[in-house]
Amino acid sequence: MHPFRTTTCGALREQNVGETVRLSGWVHRLRDHGGLLFIDLRDHYGLTQCVADPESPAFAQAEKLKAEWVVRIDGEVVAREAETVNPNLPTGQVEVRIKAIEVLSESAELPLPVFGEPDYPEETRLKYRFLDLRRETLHANIMKRQAIIWSIRNRMRDAGFFEFQTPILTASSPEGARDYLVPSRVHPGKFYALPQAPQQFKQLIMMGGFDRYFQIAPCFRDEDARADRSPGEFYQLDIEMSFATQDDVFEAVEPMLRGLFEEFGDGLPVTQKFPQIPYREAMRKYGTDKPDLRNPIEMEDVSEHFRGSGFKIFAGMLESDQNARVWAIPAKGGGSRAFCDRMNSWAQSEGQPGLGYIFFRDGEGAGPVAKNIGEERTAAIRDQLGLGDGDAVFFVAGLPAEFADFAGRARVKAGNDLELTEKEQFKFCWIVDFPMYELTDEGEVDFSHNPFSMPQGGMEALENEDPLEIKAFQYDIVCNGVELSSGAIRNHKPEIMQKAFEIAGYSREELEKEFGGMLRALQYGAPPHGGIAPGVDRIVMLLCGEENLREVVMFPMNQQAEDLLMGAPSEVSPEQLKELNIKVVPPKVAK
Amino acid sequence: MHPFRTTTCGALREQNVGETVRLSGWVHRLRDHGGLLFIDLRDHYGLTQCVADPESPAFAQAEKLKAEWVVRIDGEVVAREAETVNPNLPTGQVEVRIKAIEVLSESAELPLPVFGEPDYPEETRLKYRFLDLRRETLHANIMKRQAIIWSIRNRMRDAGFFEFQTPILTASSPEGARDYLVPSRVHPGKFYALPQAPQQFKQLIMMGGFDRYFQIAPCFRDEDARADRSPGEFYQLDIEMSFATQDDVFEAVEPMLRGLFEEFGDGLPVTQKFPQIPYREAMRKYGTDKPDLRNPIEMEDVSEHFRGSGFKIFAGMLESDQNARVWAIPAKGGGSRAFCDRMNSWAQSEGQPGLGYIFFRDGEGAGPVAKNIGEERTAAIRDQLGLGDGDAVFFVAGLPAEFADFAGRARVKAGNDLELTEKEQFKFCWIVDFPMYELTDEGEVDFSHNPFSMPQGGMEALENEDPLEIKAFQYDIVCNGVELSSGAIRNHKPEIMQKAFEIAGYSREELEKEFGGMLRALQYGAPPHGGIAPGVDRIVMLLCGEENLREVVMFPMNQQAEDLLMGAPSEVSPEQLKELNIKVVPPKVAK
Repeated sequence: MHPFRTTTCGALREQNVGETVRLSGWVHRLRDHGGLLFIDLRDHYGLTQCVADPESPAFAQAEKLKAEWVVRIDGEVVAREAETVNPNLPTGQVEVRIKAIEVLSESAELPLPVFGEPDYPEETRLKYRFLDLRRETLHANIMKRQAIIWSIRNRMRDAGFFEFQTPILTASSPEGARDYLVPSRVHPGKFYALPQAPQQFKQLIMMGGFDRYFQIAPCFRDEDARADRSPGEFYQLDIEMSFATQDDVFEAVEPMLRGLFEEFGDGLPVTQKFPQIPYREAMRKYGTDKPDLRNPIEMEDVSEHFRGSGFKIFAGMLESDQNARVWAIPAKGGGSRAFCDRMNSWAQSEGQPGLGYIFFRDGEGAGPVAKNIGEERTAAIRDQLGLGDGDAVFFVAGLPAEFADFAGRARVKAGNDLELTEKEQFKFCWIVDFPMYELTDEGEVDFSHNPFSMPQGGMEALENEDPLEIKAFQYDIVCNGVELSSGAIRNHKPEIMQKAFEIAGYSREELEKEFGGMLRALQYGAPPHGGIAPGVDRIVMLLCGEENLREVVMFPMNQQAEDLLMGAPSEVSPEQLKELNIKVVPPKVAK
Repeated sequence: MHPFRTTTCGALREQNVGETVRLSGWVHRLRDHGGLLFIDLRDHYGLTQCVADPESPAFAQAEKLKAEWVVRIDGEVVAREAETVNPNLPTGQVEVRIKAIEVLSESAELPLPVFGEPDYPEETRLKYRFLDLRRETLHANIMKRQAIIWSIRNRMRDAGFFEFQTPILTASSPEGARDYLVPSRVHPGKFYALPQAPQQFKQLIMMGGFDRYFQIAPCFRDEDARADRSPGEFYQLDIEMSFATQDDVFEAVEPMLRGLFEEFGDGLPVTQKFPQIPYREAMRKYGTDKPDLRNPIEMEDVSEHFRGSGFKIFAGMLESDQNARVWAIPAKGGGSRAFCDRMNSWAQSEGQPGLGYIFFRDGEGAGPVAKNIGEERTAAIRDQLGLGDGDAVFFVAGLPAEFADFAGRARVKAGNDLELTEKEQFKFCWIVDFPMYELTDEGEVDFSHNPFSMPQGGMEALENEDPLEIKAFQYDIVCNGVELSSGAIRNHKPEIMQKAFEIAGYSREELEKEFGGMLRALQYGAPPHGGIAPGVDRIVMLLCGEENLREVVMFPMNQQAEDLLMGAPSEVSPEQLKELNIKVVPPKVAK
């Protein structure tokens, strides 16, 4: 007989009654019922109830067991009596009558209980992660994570993609965040960098003649932690395609994501055809390029109804600046003074002067704005927005670039508070047509996102159009208001890239210095190519319904970028530093 | 029509004749035949011959093309004439009559030709890796690599294993090699280390209640380069199992490897049942714990035939030291003075005094040794080894620990030179029963391999046996003389681990300092567990028949641990160093 087990703790069913079995696992829970000792034995696969009666030769040993000891139990499978069947447990029809117990390893007093999963401080959970991982919820999340990644790999493979590994010890990558550096022992004074993303490598793979690449790729950014981003490392589903248009990327990624969310989304509805929303339209309708489309509210421009109206604040704004606008946030079901006042107070708590509104009752608009602009304009606004009695509309005015973010948040709040947002679904969209350039705070033209994207219209656009009007073949994929990824069709022509960088104020020397490898590669026959890189951790969080990475990553660091379990980072020996030709220079403490 | 292609360069067959198609790819080769221009167009999927005749409107443009330009070609599929069919090319039945060409991107003069694949210096190949990767052999190797990894993942999955990612930014791991360090910005003076292997994490996964783990795991060792080991990073198939014995590990790994080598080994025979050879037996028969079993030679102890014999050198050795031995290397077909003298010369070139031999002809043994020991002993040796006329036997004598390595190499040489070694096969074996401890050069007891292995016999053995006689549940998997991996059943009991370290001379404090995380984890109910971690790169090299990692890794570093393509490692800015609280201290140059 196998020294540890003949079956697992998740396997026994009614048809096994009468068999002699051997199980190994952790003592999940111990109960004493009328002289019988009940041991819930747990392993990776499940839970089996084992029973020792006082006549059993193993009874004395069973009495000594404690939670989380690892034991081997030999016994006979018996049917449970009808009233003790547990329909919630796959093994709930049976129990094992214990004949022998071997303690495989004991446990010291637990700093963190496994059974019951009470809330525990993060520090304890991370320091004793091996105990935390035994808890049912986290175990299930980690198993779901690996199932999701497995499914992603299969879906990508079925779509004709191949997985290649790219280097982890590499050169600094121009992703905009801070690099982790690795001192070179062999080359004193020189450093490797860990990749913020395999962006350049995946493009080089295309230039190397491969066609459809993906990788579950580890990425590294030395940024301060957020709940939805690990300090240190995270994984992205890195994708790149040759001879591909933006539509080709969408056609490859969309069915993969839809299928994935249908497979793991607990039956919640998933967008069937992802709408493609131009960046400017997204900003105007939702006040953000990461719209949560579960919220049905779409903002509209209602400037014309206020121009020259009796609501002097808005009318004045529109008159004094031709770029000024008034946007409306229609709020079905919000037609009460109480709700409108709450929204107004919330706006003030957000640092706004207030939030103008009209609410509709008894066939007419109410509130100060309606009074000021009069019945006709009020009715025109109501008709434009398709509102009626019991509804409300809120207004933001000024320069859209300045108020869009706040307007977007007001839209989210109205949607949530009025329960217009149907949470139990996954709503996807593409955001397309991002601007290639934007003005910096200093009024200079700079890349607005990825400098390697192909400008729409190519060289001709760069040479002839207002840089701020040029759009890029660049896109985001958004789910429920969470940006899963940016992507782009890349600029594969060195002359267009040089021109694009020139417009953004980079000299040839800077371009060569920062992106020399890439630029050199483009000069030897680069195919048109493009891709995307959805965040694996974010996908898993959405599908597990978790809001903290700690719940979906096996061994996360804490918010201070420390691994409390392994004790990293830690001090190293002077010999190690000497070999690496570096010295620690403690920061100066301000006096 | 798609702007780039309606099909790929590997897809067209006879049944496509008459279709109008659009292809995109690289100009692989250009030929001018009787006024016709032949363009071999290449993409990831294959090669299609395209033809421009002087009447074609695209002819003028075709004349301008050069190798490795990326072009789009529109044309009609036509059947080739019988005498121009190329049976070696999947598309060789047809060609495309060019109607239009669009240049998608040009190429500067090539530093490295793609067509023909002449041998080129490593530096050029690595600096222009994106061109090197386009070459047929390397492209095929990289595709084979990903197919092998894909197959490994599926085989592991089918065997009930799940893939989990372990941290890359972590603490120093006790694998014996040098760590790559990563300075922490947030914690001045502290460093992360890149994992030499996820050894501790995979054990923690078992302690966390998961049962069968695997990972295609990136590993990092700051060691000087060898042809078969990347400087920097490499991948291993990391495996760990709970409630598992050594046999369970073998039963999980053996079918996976056998199946893999049968799938990708080009039809070469693969060992069906891997023999399990105890370490001491391997040393005695093969002089190494990495025996190449394709070589049928097995060495034997023939000491008794020399004890008190007339061959005074050996007889004297045996008399003066009870640990001395004489081993015989039987060499079938080596029975000529010329061959024996060549072996003897080779031994001298290896720094040995020579290599004693007997060769058999005309029913008797010849050579000086035979003469000295006489007919009877010569015949006894011949009979023990099963030799006959036309065969030879070589002898090594002294302390086995000192001569075993040389004896093993003599065995390899005899096997190769006599063509006894049948190269075209994959011969696997397990090496088992490794000693737990060995004597250091200073005569102290230390771990011979992995300190985390479970000693055979457990605590009882540690307390009662001579440490040098204790075996560990530790094993190697070897293929064709290449060690693919070590593995072990782990020591899962903290008290046994403390005792094991005590014997090796570690204090409790040292143990706590170096392996505190692991030791703490073992105290809270650790399951019995074990695993292995075959090197992915080595498996791929064996299956691709390559001897240099450069041929099976997409973006390798050179032997000086430099990435010539991306320019890593490189200098970083003073600001970056300041933020990391480190300073470069140039090494002192010896005067």
